[in-house]
Amino acid sequence: MPPPGPPDGTDPAWLPPAAFRAIGSRRTLVRGGGGPLVETVFGEVAGACARFGGSVARGGATADVSSYDLVLDVGGAQGDDESFVLRRDAEGGGPTTVTAASGRGLLYGLFHLVRLGEGVFQGRWEPEVHRPALPLRMLDHWDNVAVHPVMGQVERGYAGGSIFWVDGRARHEPQRVRAYARLLAACGINAVAVNNVNVHETEAHLLTDRIGDVASLAEEFRAYGIRTHLSVSFAAPVLLGGLASADPLDAGVREWWADATAAVYDVIPDFGGYVVKADSEGQPGPFAYGRSHADGANVLAAALEPYGGTVHWRAFVYDHRQDWRDRSTDRARAAYDHFAPLDGEFAPNAVLQVKHGPMDFQVREPVSPVIGAVPRTRLAVELQVTQEYTGQQRHVCWLGPMWSDVLRFRPDGETAVGQLADGLVGVSNVGDGPYWTGHPLAQANLYTFGRLAWDPGADPLRVLDEWVSLTHPDAPDALVSGLHAVLDGSWRTYEKYTAPLGVGFMVQPGHHYGPSVDGYEYSPWGTYHFADRDGVGVDRSAATGTGYAAQYAKVWADVYESAESCPDELVLFFHHLPYGHLLRGGSTVIQHIYDTHFDGVAEVEAAREVWASLRDLVEPGRHARVAELYEEQVRSAREWRDQVNSYFLRKSGVPDARGRRIY
Amino acid sequence: MPPPGPPDGTDPAWLPPAAFRAIGSRRTLVRGGGGPLVETVFGEVAGACARFGGSVARGGATADVSSYDLVLDVGGAQGDDESFVLRRDAEGGGPTTVTAASGRGLLYGLFHLVRLGEGVFQGRWEPEVHRPALPLRMLDHWDNVAVHPVMGQVERGYAGGSIFWVDGRARHEPQRVRAYARLLAACGINAVAVNNVNVHETEAHLLTDRIGDVASLAEEFRAYGIRTHLSVSFAAPVLLGGLASADPLDAGVREWWADATAAVYDVIPDFGGYVVKADSEGQPGPFAYGRSHADGANVLAAALEPYGGTVHWRAFVYDHRQDWRDRSTDRARAAYDHFAPLDGEFAPNAVLQVKHGPMDFQVREPVSPVIGAVPRTRLAVELQVTQEYTGQQRHVCWLGPMWSDVLRFRPDGETAVGQLADGLVGVSNVGDGPYWTGHPLAQANLYTFGRLAWDPGADPLRVLDEWVSLTHPDAPDALVSGLHAVLDGSWRTYEKYTAPLGVGFMVQPGHHYGPSVDGYEYSPWGTYHFADRDGVGVDRSAATGTGYAAQYAKVWADVYESAESCPDELVLFFHHLPYGHLLRGGSTVIQHIYDTHFDGVAEVEAAREVWASLRDLVEPGRHARVAELYEEQVRSAREWRDQVNSYFLRKSGVPDARGRRIY
Repeated sequence: MPPPGPPDGTDPAWLPPAAFRAIGSRRTLVRGGGGPLVETVFGEVAGACARFGGSVARGGATADVSSYDLVLDVGGAQGDDESFVLRRDAEGGGPTTVTAASGRGLLYGLFHLVRLGEGVFQGRWEPEVHRPALPLRMLDHWDNVAVHPVMGQVERGYAGGSIFWVDGRARHEPQRVRAYARLLAACGINAVAVNNVNVHETEAHLLTDRIGDVASLAEEFRAYGIRTHLSVSFAAPVLLGGLASADPLDAGVREWWADATAAVYDVIPDFGGYVVKADSEGQPGPFAYGRSHADGANVLAAALEPYGGTVHWRAFVYDHRQDWRDRSTDRARAAYDHFAPLDGEFAPNAVLQVKHGPMDFQVREPVSPVIGAVPRTRLAVELQVTQEYTGQQRHVCWLGPMWSDVLRFRPDGETAVGQLADGLVGVSNVGDGPYWTGHPLAQANLYTFGRLAWDPGADPLRVLDEWVSLTHPDAPDALVSGLHAVLDGSWRTYEKYTAPLGVGFMVQPGHHYGPSVDGYEYSPWGTYHFADRDGVGVDRSAATGTGYAAQYAKVWADVYESAESCPDELVLFFHHLPYGHLLRGGSTVIQHIYDTHFDGVAEVEAAREVWASLRDLVEPGRHARVAELYEEQVRSAREWRDQVNSYFLRKSGVPDARGRRIY
Repeated sequence: MPPPGPPDGTDPAWLPPAAFRAIGSRRTLVRGGGGPLVETVFGEVAGACARFGGSVARGGATADVSSYDLVLDVGGAQGDDESFVLRRDAEGGGPTTVTAASGRGLLYGLFHLVRLGEGVFQGRWEPEVHRPALPLRMLDHWDNVAVHPVMGQVERGYAGGSIFWVDGRARHEPQRVRAYARLLAACGINAVAVNNVNVHETEAHLLTDRIGDVASLAEEFRAYGIRTHLSVSFAAPVLLGGLASADPLDAGVREWWADATAAVYDVIPDFGGYVVKADSEGQPGPFAYGRSHADGANVLAAALEPYGGTVHWRAFVYDHRQDWRDRSTDRARAAYDHFAPLDGEFAPNAVLQVKHGPMDFQVREPVSPVIGAVPRTRLAVELQVTQEYTGQQRHVCWLGPMWSDVLRFRPDGETAVGQLADGLVGVSNVGDGPYWTGHPLAQANLYTFGRLAWDPGADPLRVLDEWVSLTHPDAPDALVSGLHAVLDGSWRTYEKYTAPLGVGFMVQPGHHYGPSVDGYEYSPWGTYHFADRDGVGVDRSAATGTGYAAQYAKVWADVYESAESCPDELVLFFHHLPYGHLLRGGSTVIQHIYDTHFDGVAEVEAAREVWASLRDLVEPGRHARVAELYEEQVRSAREWRDQVNSYFLRKSGVPDARGRRIY
């Protein structure tokens, strides 16, 4: 087996060899039970020692620890216990000890040690129990097997091709997949869905005659404690099984799913389960048979149940053929209207996978009201790590603060989303380019996602600290502060120069990159801002609008119902306001639009300068790539600024109070 | 050889067998010289006689005509003389005689007889000389050999695949090509360019190693007097010849073109010449070498000259990376600015091919000022038969009146465009669908194009009469009047429900079907309407605008310069006007927008009803296809109406004076 790490030419991301120096230069004992994940841990430590001069030994459960700096102590459990305990008893003495009941916990303990570095070998560490807050920490790849004529190899992918598939077939690059699994495990991810939720013809066959390709991937993921999931077509019994129907209440259909699933587990014994996008944007679903989405999910859940598998059922169901003339229909209402009434009807191994906002991964949305409305349903919150609407990995936009806001939101005023949810799912931003994520700095999003899934209450800036110090070991202060300067506020900067005040969209139709204020205004997609010469925004109040605001618990419904109490950053999502309306922040709506767009561009220009100043502190290829992308970001941000400002000046006729140039 | 006509399953268009009844039921003598086109004529008459019981004989130049109803008299000339004389001397006697110096003239005389039908065998016909007004009557196919990832097999094609090419190779369907040549000859077309002016990698090779595919097409076209042309890449010496440069003043480049052209004529002795799109929308051109477009055209002209070939050099040169913020640059000016200074510098066998308007085939544009500005240059006017911006062959939009307006326009106040030009070029609307043109009624556009190229002064409604009676022989009055009712005014109807008052565009970016008022407003394409809350339109006056109006001779410059004298239908092309501005027609700009959009939809709805009433008079498959397309046209027209009206209501705040529903 090659030493752990990425194949040649691929960036080590947050696991450069130097990140293992503290472990690799010490004497380590791996003590206790075995199993494949313990072997993985042993291999990691051995690889580090080979580089940094330390040593690693194996020992029985009672082996003497006195001559070791580090003891990795593992029980015999082979279950899913992911917890570990870290402690270091004696001042100046040792050893540092990680204790875990299973290899899985030990693996997470190892990467925790990597994060802590030298510090964990010094001083006293009171016993700390670490366990993930959420059992489901999953990345969904929107990778196609066959290149889609419009969407390409990876739908909404901005980092090159797929690392799993190319031109209709499996790539069979186990070293790359294992290196990827290692990166994911190091930030805490434990599940990956290997194909797009839009399941086309070729991809449908992964479930049956092409399951071997999935099994090959599962073998690599398994080595780092990651279970493999598959997106399947709800119509599989018809498409693949030749049945006349995919009706979930049909006995033949149930049998088909049971048989198909048994065959999957024959080759992937730890298979994670299915992901399903049903009755959504053209995908088949239970509505065709007059059945509910609970009926739909439960037939798959029943098939998976004997093996411990889970079905992830997406709540992204809405009418994508809406008539823009119809102001009574509101896409934002759709997920709640469809799924809240089904609470309690889903099987225990069905997980309702809900996008964090009611629309579609905009730079600013309120938290989906579904999240607080299904207490008797297992729930996963879906985030978009791939930057479809947030700069497509050509713009720096670190999403940690946005995700943290979501996870700390309290739908009932008391319990946070991160406590309500069973899982966090991210749409992957990974491809086969040299930096995994296209933009080198977009690695921070992938890392942050994993760490927030482990601990939704974590301060995202502390997570970013971790990413910076892992990715750039021994970074001088100037580099650390420079990276924080360009990343910390980048999401709010992006928000400033794009769609204002939560109104969303205003992007180029289709590919979604760059501004088009009216691009979706007269479309069937349900995404409107209703700007006219007097004002802008969507009235979603209960009193005079679509009633969406009333889908929240009273504590929030009251806040959102009134433009006076609604937070500025969401006010055009909930209200149609005159351009002269005074925001809580003190500006008028129109002046806020102008100010934020000028400010946002200035902030990108400043970030570009900060990056330029880091030239001597960053590997030249990496520095040049980011510098090149900053040119595009500045160009694009100016385009956003000028189009949005010109659009609203032309419409409102209100000049900029500060007299800046608007075209 | 099979009888003349289309292959099975393909519509006979304007040459159904019954159109030949008058000739086929008579005794005909083909008298005089021979040659391939005389053989074609003989074959046509023989085929008609086989069906309708007449007879046809050959005779020498002095053969006795007394026992014949029809004499087709041909001299021995094999040149390009396309004229013929028609006469019928004796009342009630005969014979009817067509005299031509060459087989080419005889062929056109034959199709003239077909148009005249029974009437030409009755009464006395004084000798009439018929000759085409324009020697160049050409169709340009924008057909790709290899399927383009965005543009497909036929760029801007709305009638299926190409009849020449499929998936990277030649189709080799000689019967279909010959049937097509026959249809074209019957309306007077004498030249076809067989590939797209955007010459991609695969298509570049047609000039050299794939010239055999072109020769196969030329063989079929030749039988109907049509010369074959090829679109070539200006960079061919580099791409194909491996030269370091394509500089037109480089001796090696001149030699390369001379050699390549000699090789073409080796296999296609009557090859028509080249079509070139240079320095336009990404195509290579002489600017890269600091040379003028006359230099560029002349190097190709010199290569073609020894063989009588012609280079068609397109004047569609503009900056397609314009900054929308820059109001001083005006795309409309570009062709004149580039080409008027070059007048007199082009070789005699170079033809400057100028789009009829300054922009790009919009439903309404002024006539290009280039047309009146290059008296010492051979000139072809380019029309778009394929309906890129006029309904994409899903909408009925008969363009005869628009083209006739162009051809009868007098740039200097005296001489019509149809007299100034040497040629008329149409972008083909033909594909491999069952009706040749997608929409069955779009056949009328192709036919009208050919007939206007023959006689630019013709009344387009008389041409439409011809098309109706050829396509539907023995049509009852109700069908004739029904077809006129749906076709005659269809262009103006289309104009009413789309972009108003000459302002243009407002289409969906990319594919150009359907409305998007701001779709091109902030784009790099130079296509803006500048609508704001106070008014709309582009100031192209000399006094306060871009100066485009001054590119015309004084007689028109004065008219266009002032909003008071500018024709309403072009007023927003030339002026930015307040919504309340009173048009010459008596409406305000805003009320005109509302009225025309409501009226346009009402007219389409009425046309749909007229078509429905023709159910028993039209072949069922054809009727059903058109009826189906009318459903889409009505839907699309309503979408145009509602988007345009909503856009301008939201922007202007002016309510409809008649209180109709605007969203």
